[in-house]
Amino acid sequence: MTTTATTLKGQPLDRQTLDAMLRRRLFFTPAFEIYGGVAGLFDYGPPGCSLQANIVDLWRKHFILEEDMLEIDTTVLTPHEVLKTSGHVDKFADWMCKDPKNGDILRADHFVEDVLESRLKGNKEARGEKVEEEDDPKKKKKRKTKTEAVKLDDNVVQEYEEVLAKIDNYNGEELGELIKKYDLKNPATGVQPSPPVAFNLMFQTSIGPSSNLAGYLRPETAQGQFLNFAKLLDFNMQQMPFASASIGRSYRNEISPRAGLLRVREFLMAEIEHFVDPEGGKKHHRFPEVDAIELTLLDRHTQLAGKTDVKKMTIGDAVRNKVVDNETLGYFLARIHLFLQKIGVDMSKVRFRQHMENEMAHYAADCWDAELLTSSGWIECVGCADRSAYDLSVHAKKTGAPLVVRERLDEPLIFEEWQVEIDKKKFGPQFKKDGKTVEAALEATTQEQREKLAKQLIDNGELELEVAGVGSGTVKVSKDLVKIEFRKRVENTREYTPNVIEPSFGIGRILYSLIEHVYWNRATEDGGDEARGVLSFPPMVAPTKVLIVPLSANKQFQPFINKISQKLRKIGISARVDSSSATIGKRYSRNDELGTPLGITIDFQTVQDSTITLRDRDSTKQVRADEDTIIAAIQSLVTGAREWKDVAAELPAFEGQEVDVTVR
Amino acid sequence: MTTTATTLKGQPLDRQTLDAMLRRRLFFTPAFEIYGGVAGLFDYGPPGCSLQANIVDLWRKHFILEEDMLEIDTTVLTPHEVLKTSGHVDKFADWMCKDPKNGDILRADHFVEDVLESRLKGNKEARGEKVEEEDDPKKKKKRKTKTEAVKLDDNVVQEYEEVLAKIDNYNGEELGELIKKYDLKNPATGVQPSPPVAFNLMFQTSIGPSSNLAGYLRPETAQGQFLNFAKLLDFNMQQMPFASASIGRSYRNEISPRAGLLRVREFLMAEIEHFVDPEGGKKHHRFPEVDAIELTLLDRHTQLAGKTDVKKMTIGDAVRNKVVDNETLGYFLARIHLFLQKIGVDMSKVRFRQHMENEMAHYAADCWDAELLTSSGWIECVGCADRSAYDLSVHAKKTGAPLVVRERLDEPLIFEEWQVEIDKKKFGPQFKKDGKTVEAALEATTQEQREKLAKQLIDNGELELEVAGVGSGTVKVSKDLVKIEFRKRVENTREYTPNVIEPSFGIGRILYSLIEHVYWNRATEDGGDEARGVLSFPPMVAPTKVLIVPLSANKQFQPFINKISQKLRKIGISARVDSSSATIGKRYSRNDELGTPLGITIDFQTVQDSTITLRDRDSTKQVRADEDTIIAAIQSLVTGAREWKDVAAELPAFEGQEVDVTVR
Repeated sequence: MTTTATTLKGQPLDRQTLDAMLRRRLFFTPAFEIYGGVAGLFDYGPPGCSLQANIVDLWRKHFILEEDMLEIDTTVLTPHEVLKTSGHVDKFADWMCKDPKNGDILRADHFVEDVLESRLKGNKEARGEKVEEEDDPKKKKKRKTKTEAVKLDDNVVQEYEEVLAKIDNYNGEELGELIKKYDLKNPATGVQPSPPVAFNLMFQTSIGPSSNLAGYLRPETAQGQFLNFAKLLDFNMQQMPFASASIGRSYRNEISPRAGLLRVREFLMAEIEHFVDPEGGKKHHRFPEVDAIELTLLDRHTQLAGKTDVKKMTIGDAVRNKVVDNETLGYFLARIHLFLQKIGVDMSKVRFRQHMENEMAHYAADCWDAELLTSSGWIECVGCADRSAYDLSVHAKKTGAPLVVRERLDEPLIFEEWQVEIDKKKFGPQFKKDGKTVEAALEATTQEQREKLAKQLIDNGELELEVAGVGSGTVKVSKDLVKIEFRKRVENTREYTPNVIEPSFGIGRILYSLIEHVYWNRATEDGGDEARGVLSFPPMVAPTKVLIVPLSANKQFQPFINKISQKLRKIGISARVDSSSATIGKRYSRNDELGTPLGITIDFQTVQDSTITLRDRDSTKQVRADEDTIIAAIQSLVTGAREWKDVAAELPAFEGQEVDVTVR
Repeated sequence: MTTTATTLKGQPLDRQTLDAMLRRRLFFTPAFEIYGGVAGLFDYGPPGCSLQANIVDLWRKHFILEEDMLEIDTTVLTPHEVLKTSGHVDKFADWMCKDPKNGDILRADHFVEDVLESRLKGNKEARGEKVEEEDDPKKKKKRKTKTEAVKLDDNVVQEYEEVLAKIDNYNGEELGELIKKYDLKNPATGVQPSPPVAFNLMFQTSIGPSSNLAGYLRPETAQGQFLNFAKLLDFNMQQMPFASASIGRSYRNEISPRAGLLRVREFLMAEIEHFVDPEGGKKHHRFPEVDAIELTLLDRHTQLAGKTDVKKMTIGDAVRNKVVDNETLGYFLARIHLFLQKIGVDMSKVRFRQHMENEMAHYAADCWDAELLTSSGWIECVGCADRSAYDLSVHAKKTGAPLVVRERLDEPLIFEEWQVEIDKKKFGPQFKKDGKTVEAALEATTQEQREKLAKQLIDNGELELEVAGVGSGTVKVSKDLVKIEFRKRVENTREYTPNVIEPSFGIGRILYSLIEHVYWNRATEDGGDEARGVLSFPPMVAPTKVLIVPLSANKQFQPFINKISQKLRKIGISARVDSSSATIGKRYSRNDELGTPLGITIDFQTVQDSTITLRDRDSTKQVRADEDTIIAAIQSLVTGAREWKDVAAELPAFEGQEVDVTVR
């Protein structure tokens, strides 16, 4: 938890400089800023919007197309009853405290974290140990109080550290106890806040003109997929297993959003619901393809022991050793790992953390988060939960809809068993109002009991059964009212409720973490102080692929600009022209900040021999060749078929222009 | 308005058959159906979701990429204050009546339409004229009452028809008067409903834990674009004109949604805000490219005369004749026309209808809708409004943010004018609490007044000014407190608020109308009665491009299936395999309903010589060639480079398989 945030090149990452750059380049911006803004709401400007679209596009290819998933698009507005059944109305909440003095509303777990981390820092100061600001990166910006240098006993330090390691595992009552036990006070007022109460995180609204249909904005896309399960199974011609997927916005009314894009109230999710037969160990037929992939794992037991040590392990071993519960869950963890790698995430800053018992969502049987290390600490970017049969079962029970799979058995199953046959016509008149109760008691008997009762019927002509609440508690039933016999039963179909493995991606968090992972500073060429920011996105995800810069505003360049733009557009490669009067160096610098991987320069030589130069953002090296050769090189770089070193090895290098030439 | 709905081949379109097919193939489905559904909310299944994605993708290429628009992605949640300023809180409403007897809530304009159309139909029946059910296609399904055969006078018929032609032009009071004048009663109860009241169409919610920040779900994406105007102008390096664009969901709490996808409460919009200098006639530099494109226009005057006759006219003529106000508006109307054509809309079922005065949204200066003819009548699918400077002005005024363009003038403007110079230090002590009022009154004087006041100062050493509410209403100001002189003023920059031309697309309405336009029935080959539905989507928008069918479940075919699937996936062409045991004919039939344009059959000849057949959905003709030739043909068809007739002319025809062969 105490790693210093660094750039791609290992430089200390200055969050404020990066934020300023991202806002300057309009990656994103607080929504409604001219109205003062609303916490937790952000707009994406052109580069952010394009980056997001490229990540989503790769996601769709990596998951949906690769495995023929059924993509659906469902509504955000969701009626109360659906989310009542799913458990969200009752349980989708965070713990919230209120400061009785100034009315501050605090998220309880964050509050406990804040104060304890502040005390630990004060202890270090008091002991004269070095305190790095990044030691508690989550709090850096927002802490409202000055740390007081107070020395703590060694055992107190250890206790605090253990609490922090399992902070996600406490419920509201436990958080309340911690607040009392450690006498935690709101730094703003010096007052202890009220005990935590649950605050439901769903945005509420009402649907229709008469305002009588209560509804919510969905907190996840999953429910829309579950409700369509039977139709999707039909569409898939009854084949199992299969997965559905949805990409869409979800909403959570966070108590006190902070940390920019990492905790927002409206966000884009991409969720997969993989439906699998719960019997047979949840195998996955493509598991062998990922077996040898090594993941960084932080399991539940380690955390509960108050530690955060990770283990490196192949997913094959993790499943075989039961660290990860089953093949299907493991398969998706590995696929998530590959996806993050593909979009350019720094894999040394990724870990898979298992949820602790109390931390898991109310529906989950097991859950692993892919966490990415950022200047705000380890951030959950992908969740991968085994939701078991929870959702399909509760919706089926509530609505009566058969959310099940019916499988024709190759060989019928034959059961031999004691069966109860009640003569209902005679039963009513005999037992009157108690009829149903006695019937139910008979139906509820076990095989062993039935064997005994059958013997009673033969021996005595009647049976004796204990039925609570009827007469004396013991009821006699004669053999003309009931038969109990050992018979054969044949089943030709098997019916089951599938289990669900759910990989769930927070696109905005991935996008922001990726930005931090590919960010670095280039020293200026003249050795000046001003660091120049670079975003080294892989070409596939970069917002714009090519910058086209004419050497100057000379009109002779225009036909070349037009022709090259059109050719690139035709092969679907996004390019932008910068004909501004800034120096070439400045224009490239601006596009380094936008993460544009390639640059084309059009100069006076172009006018003579139609050659152009191609510049690589990361190395700033250039090559020169004719237009079509350069465009072919661009296409191979953007699709990922080749890397810059291949292109540089093949085409003649070009020196020049990168120096700040003045515009003619 | 009384055209019979037809299929692509001119057959009568049976809405119920089509709806059943669309639901069977899971294009879309009522959301939350297992919970009884919610009116106006629909989910898209895999083919609908893919069709939507393809339409959006083409939209993005046709508009955003073609013109380097700045795409942004803004939040749906919007605080009250923003929509109060934009006018939506006060004016974004429909007129709603309530039935006092049963509490029915009726949308006033629809109610008036319903009853008058029903009376017109009853009149036809009474006169023994032929009544086609499609005569009033909007009402077909939902009318709650039987038409009574009552004869109307000729002048009454004419009056009703005129009212219907301009039904969109009445406000609430006028609708109330129509209800009284014609004694319109709710068919369900026989009672006249209450006078119309405004019902705001926005969904309300509250943001944050203390519930004190009121918010709405946005009714359009436009506001998010306007609020970011200054940042976008910066991003565009101060260049004008430019356009921003957003694709995202919006929400309208419709009073009584009906007509399936055509009136829904949650929908995907694609909106462009093109910012243009209001001076110079709103020219567009690419207008010559579209000048000769002929559009079908229904202008405001025609409608107000109670008619619906359209005119065909080139957009060039329409702008020159002032039917369409300006080039920029005209340019976008033509671009909308081209877009609809590109995605496969039947252009004989498209018209551009101008809004009447009362019909226009509160922000619009002029507005044309692209309407598509469907079985529910003419449906507004794209709006193209000139919002003038309305939005930027109101937000700038409210927030103080400078939502303007500052343009350096090549030649400075020089003004000679009477200027007022107030000595504020002396003003306060002299007038005390009235100081500000007197100052404001002085500043508000006209040039003419100032000339006179200047004379008074010279002549009398003081001026006399009427200032309501101060003293006797007349104030004297002496020359040591104020100077009024004729001076020169030089302006080097021009500052203006851009006007906005807004093409706004309802993607769901376009999607549904397109489906009706490309739908037709194929007679069965054995001449049987059962019509087979076909959706003739152009390959570019079709949900799936290729169906791969092995002749049977024979294992020899599997390697070919895998290889072809992989090759298609690699070039980004979506394909699905149908290895079910149904006959080839049935499998193709199923995919005709899904609109899959191409089919590949793998048969025993494939195993011998690696040739495969390619089938065209519309003609059912097949050609046969080796794998790579067929894949190249598919690619050219899907990108639109070639049409089927080109492929059929080049490759050898193949007969067979289309007959229902039994599976081996």
